[in-house]
Amino acid sequence: MEKTKIGVLGATGMVGQAIVQLLSGHPWFELSEVAASERSAGQRYGEAMASRWSMGPEVPDAAAGLTVKECTPDLDCDLVLSALDSSVAGGIEERFAKAGYAVSSNARNHRMEPDVPLLIPEINSEHLQLIGAQRKRTGWKGFIVTDPNCSTIAMCLALAPLAERFGIEKVMVTTMQALSGAGYPGVASTDALDNVIPFISGEEEKMQSEPLKILGKVSPAGVKEPRIEISAQCNRVPVRNGHTECISVKLSKAASEKEVIKAFREFRPLKGNGLPSAPDPPLVYLDSDLRPQPRLDAWSYRGMAVSIGRLRRCSVLDYKFVALSNNLIRGAAGAALLNAELLKSRGYLDH
Amino acid sequence: MEKTKIGVLGATGMVGQAIVQLLSGHPWFELSEVAASERSAGQRYGEAMASRWSMGPEVPDAAAGLTVKECTPDLDCDLVLSALDSSVAGGIEERFAKAGYAVSSNARNHRMEPDVPLLIPEINSEHLQLIGAQRKRTGWKGFIVTDPNCSTIAMCLALAPLAERFGIEKVMVTTMQALSGAGYPGVASTDALDNVIPFISGEEEKMQSEPLKILGKVSPAGVKEPRIEISAQCNRVPVRNGHTECISVKLSKAASEKEVIKAFREFRPLKGNGLPSAPDPPLVYLDSDLRPQPRLDAWSYRGMAVSIGRLRRCSVLDYKFVALSNNLIRGAAGAALLNAELLKSRGYLDH
Amino acid sequence: MEKTKIGVLGATGMVGQAIVQLLSGHPWFELSEVAASERSAGQRYGEAMASRWSMGPEVPDAAAGLTVKECTPDLDCDLVLSALDSSVAGGIEERFAKAGYAVSSNARNHRMEPDVPLLIPEINSEHLQLIGAQRKRTGWKGFIVTDPNCSTIAMCLALAPLAERFGIEKVMVTTMQALSGAGYPGVASTDALDNVIPFISGEEEKMQSEPLKILGKVSPAGVKEPRIEISAQCNRVPVRNGHTECISVKLSKAASEKEVIKAFREFRPLKGNGLPSAPDPPLVYLDSDLRPQPRLDAWSYRGMAVSIGRLRRCSVLDYKFVALSNNLIRGAAGAALLNAELLKSRGYLDH
Amino acid sequence: MEKTKIGVLGATGMVGQAIVQLLSGHPWFELSEVAASERSAGQRYGEAMASRWSMGPEVPDAAAGLTVKECTPDLDCDLVLSALDSSVAGGIEERFAKAGYAVSSNARNHRMEPDVPLLIPEINSEHLQLIGAQRKRTGWKGFIVTDPNCSTIAMCLALAPLAERFGIEKVMVTTMQALSGAGYPGVASTDALDNVIPFISGEEEKMQSEPLKILGKVSPAGVKEPRIEISAQCNRVPVRNGHTECISVKLSKAASEKEVIKAFREFRPLKGNGLPSAPDPPLVYLDSDLRPQPRLDAWSYRGMAVSIGRLRRCSVLDYKFVALSNNLIRGAAGAALLNAELLKSRGYLDH
Repeated sequence: MEKTKIGVLGATGMVGQAIVQLLSGHPWFELSEVAASERSAGQRYGEAMASRWSMGPEVPDAAAGLTVKECTPDLDCDLVLSALDSSVAGGIEERFAKAGYAVSSNARNHRMEPDVPLLIPEINSEHLQLIGAQRKRTGWKGFIVTDPNCSTIAMCLALAPLAERFGIEKVMVTTMQALSGAGYPGVASTDALDNVIPFISGEEEKMQSEPLKILGKVSPAGVKEPRIEISAQCNRVPVRNGHTECISVKLSKAASEKEVIKAFREFRPLKGNGLPSAPDPPLVYLDSDLRPQPRLDAWSYRGMAVSIGRLRRCSVLDYKFVALSNNLIRGAAGAALLNAELLKSRGYLDH
Repeated sequence: MEKTKIGVLGATGMVGQAIVQLLSGHPWFELSEVAASERSAGQRYGEAMASRWSMGPEVPDAAAGLTVKECTPDLDCDLVLSALDSSVAGGIEERFAKAGYAVSSNARNHRMEPDVPLLIPEINSEHLQLIGAQRKRTGWKGFIVTDPNCSTIAMCLALAPLAERFGIEKVMVTTMQALSGAGYPGVASTDALDNVIPFISGEEEKMQSEPLKILGKVSPAGVKEPRIEISAQCNRVPVRNGHTECISVKLSKAASEKEVIKAFREFRPLKGNGLPSAPDPPLVYLDSDLRPQPRLDAWSYRGMAVSIGRLRRCSVLDYKFVALSNNLIRGAAGAALLNAELLKSRGYLDH
Repeated sequence: MEKTKIGVLGATGMVGQAIVQLLSGHPWFELSEVAASERSAGQRYGEAMASRWSMGPEVPDAAAGLTVKECTPDLDCDLVLSALDSSVAGGIEERFAKAGYAVSSNARNHRMEPDVPLLIPEINSEHLQLIGAQRKRTGWKGFIVTDPNCSTIAMCLALAPLAERFGIEKVMVTTMQALSGAGYPGVASTDALDNVIPFISGEEEKMQSEPLKILGKVSPAGVKEPRIEISAQCNRVPVRNGHTECISVKLSKAASEKEVIKAFREFRPLKGNGLPSAPDPPLVYLDSDLRPQPRLDAWSYRGMAVSIGRLRRCSVLDYKFVALSNNLIRGAAGAALLNAELLKSRGYLDH
Repeated sequence: MEKTKIGVLGATGMVGQAIVQLLSGHPWFELSEVAASERSAGQRYGEAMASRWSMGPEVPDAAAGLTVKECTPDLDCDLVLSALDSSVAGGIEERFAKAGYAVSSNARNHRMEPDVPLLIPEINSEHLQLIGAQRKRTGWKGFIVTDPNCSTIAMCLALAPLAERFGIEKVMVTTMQALSGAGYPGVASTDALDNVIPFISGEEEKMQSEPLKILGKVSPAGVKEPRIEISAQCNRVPVRNGHTECISVKLSKAASEKEVIKAFREFRPLKGNGLPSAPDPPLVYLDSDLRPQPRLDAWSYRGMAVSIGRLRRCSVLDYKFVALSNNLIRGAAGAALLNAELLKSRGYLDH
């Protein structure tokens, strides 16, 4: 099989770097273009990243030799993975879609548009059918799909099997989010060290709205959102990578502790689908009271699985538990990549 | 006024050190005895602490010269502040009470006994009347009063004005607790750094049970607990000092955001009582979205005030907000000291 | 005594904030003006700092009400403390000096000019005589004095008594510098956490050149630098406040370990001078092998003393030891303030 | 080729865990026994480590099923890798050697014995000849080889090519050592966080004595130590993994900056030897001023390479530079394993 050519928009940022790293040696995809702001354009990627590369000792060879391009829709690739900042992502992604590119975006700009899929392949791959409506509306030859906010993804993956088996009515979540979630330079070190910051701009709103679209039923008429009350409190903690979420949930139907854990453990919707970046299982339920922890669990299944632990009764809602995911991989770079793999496997990248 | 002589049990531990520091220059009290386990007994306190003192550059002069005693009830003092580990606190504190000492304890052992006051002076000083029943039951000449668990204190202080004005039915709390709360050596640094540990043994149980006693109505028959559902999730984060708590609450009576903030700001139950360690106000409501933070707010009113911020509607319960307190001071050393001051001011230390 | 009116240039930055904090309740000085870049100008200082104040819970009342001015020489004050960034400090400070203000600067711009005193009051207050030459050269009615780089100050204070008693020929120093030394936002948290960065731009050069001027002999002809070889290696470590320095030194004259420690302990050159911010003693030699530590010692004598420990033989040079200072106070804000106090006490602020 | 059976002594500690991890999938070796103190003996390794495993999400399958044995010389293996604490390692290792086992130890106990090789395979594999003398003296059927202290290994690897090409006369080193180097639980988190501890017991002595043996010439008469003056200052910094060392060196022979860097880069003494854990190259010289950093470089060549950067002239000695290594892998677990591989390749494990 010939590899599909991939371009990365925003390739010099933290999420962009993670995408470049994940594409190194990918079985289906070949990194053919790296694009960024004007400042970096024209340089070799290896040079541009000399003192900024933060994914390990070295820029992957195949990427290091590429020339950084500007984010204009004349790149030699079939799909672009967009790790652009939301201040510029909106327009650039539209220009690429209009010019015929498939766009798999990590930016928030188009997430909540009715005909743009907000995808988590394990949960709502059938939302891909929105692409038809999107093309009709816009007249684009290409299209845009998006992945959710980093803390939304982890929570939705944990909630999905419960929603499916028991129904969900209410959710309360308090997050302890990693510094890498703020991008680079992100949080100042004198603010972060030995401290908790009890606020992340826009984050609670995203966690309260995005899950309704993700867990919604799709039809030609669009996505019908379920009735779930969600209340989120989001905090920044001095952890480099790995968002931890304390979640309480009220179910529609009674379920024993054993049944809930079984639901987590049997959740394997992509089993056998062969998507290279799909973790199997996507949820790892851990028995130890002390887990999950960012240090131990952020890289479970190469950073793509969500780790869950401490399921117990909640005296206000029904159950409470802790979920953890790698915000940089499962919550961003790997999420956009997995969406691209889904597109490929469903024929959306064929000409 | 002659100063009351105070002994500190467990004076070499982290809370004990904080008590010794707080007593330096205290207007009512004089540190006359420091006691600890056999290992340290016999040494000068200054020498015993030479490489363990962690409250700043130097052991206060008055304490440095004291000889460390064993924790037996033959100390030259009227009241003992107990910072003993719960593995030994129970029996030792009883022996002191029996021998006629007033005991103000920070240990958990006697907290939930029906006739032992579990005190937060701003909330339930009238619980002191349990001392009578306690003496009758035990025949002790002395008595024991206790302070609550560190994370309980902060939450109860934040809830007290809401309970008083609007009534409280349900509470959900997720904590991000500091490392100093685990004592010394406490959490291993390789476990703590760049990590979150989603479990603190026994902590959730304490946060779910202690508030009911604290907020309960006292009568000669004991404390009648209110009906409040509390659900707690407790986490350890890499912060040295300062517990942060994300709290959601369901009120019995409707209240506007403005009324809730007013309730926090007007809560000054000890105003004019003159207890030297009582912060006035005990609650500081901060307007910035970015507050409270351990780094900025842990030492508010010398570590004795609870800082509150981010009050907003909760779509599952009624309101949510963030509370922060200095776990070492307001949550332990200062709490036991404030209880001792309350005892003094109410005549319980008179002969 | 009427208080001298002080303006702070760069009052919104990290060092500026520290100066504002130190001036609160100062016995000689009164903060009359706060100035910063255009962006902040026109606002009340309290409002401008609402979400940026990082010196504790609250902006001091006296400062909060001041209107932030631009950094132009029409401020109502006799002396300006400059905490400006070096990218703008040079010209602004000159304009103030020309307009007749005394300028005590923390910026590096004028430090190495032959007729600008580079002051550490405990070491070279006689360098004030350079002011005469400076005025003659420039024709300014005012003048500029500077304080050294933060890591230079700590090292020079530690070396001064050794230079005086035994002479110094060679110095090797490796620093572990705190994050606050980089200003705000300074180092990105994802770079700082759980990491060491072995480079601080320009820092090694400053540590190798500034001490020669500081320890030099002044005469009407200028400062004659001593012959000392200094080699510095500077690192950034995840510590908020407090620079630690491992220093090795070759002396001109043999000295016993006891004599060296005695030299540290007897170094009290400002004893009895009455400068309010001068620590007495300026050097605290600690006997424990485990000291000094940023956590325990950064605030020794309100952050103005340098703590020293672990003196022992060095098999390559003669002695090695560890020195620590509060980079924000002794190394910046307090240094500029102490220089201002020296100017006041020597009559340089009289009209 | 049949795999050699390996036992791990002290398999439950931090270094022991790292060895177990490294042996998973090893091409030459098979983990056949895990041994630890009485407390753990009798349990399955997987169970014993349930809440203590700190090398990632899971204990490797092959190890999880092994029963933990006591450290007595009746294990089913040919070689034991000893990760024992030095408080017990001495006697246990001797009993194994006496019983005929090859012992590759990470403990300090036997390092400086004249006939025990203190090995870094890239530097002194010819020291293996000491085993003959060792056996003659002791009458053991087996034997002991050791690896150096973690911070010694990194420094010696960096110095080796300089010693070889230019000769070395003096070395000054200041270390910033990671918390994992102290084992588990090691440093208390309240001591470690946001702090530097300027002392590590015994560390400076090891760094000053071990290199002389390592770099010494071996002959039947033993090791002849070279004349090098070494002075070390050792600090603990809040980094989980990765020791950073600032090194200054005086060479016997003049060398240009270019020649020194060339010496680092051309140092490939094990090239083509085929030892599975040997990094090629063992030294990675990085051009960026900002490198090496623990975060980026600790896992270079699977944690086995030493990263070097910032070579520049030193005004007191000749050159200074920064070296970094993974203390847990190159400095301990991987060092003992590489020594075992060397033994295997040289026929010391044949029967």
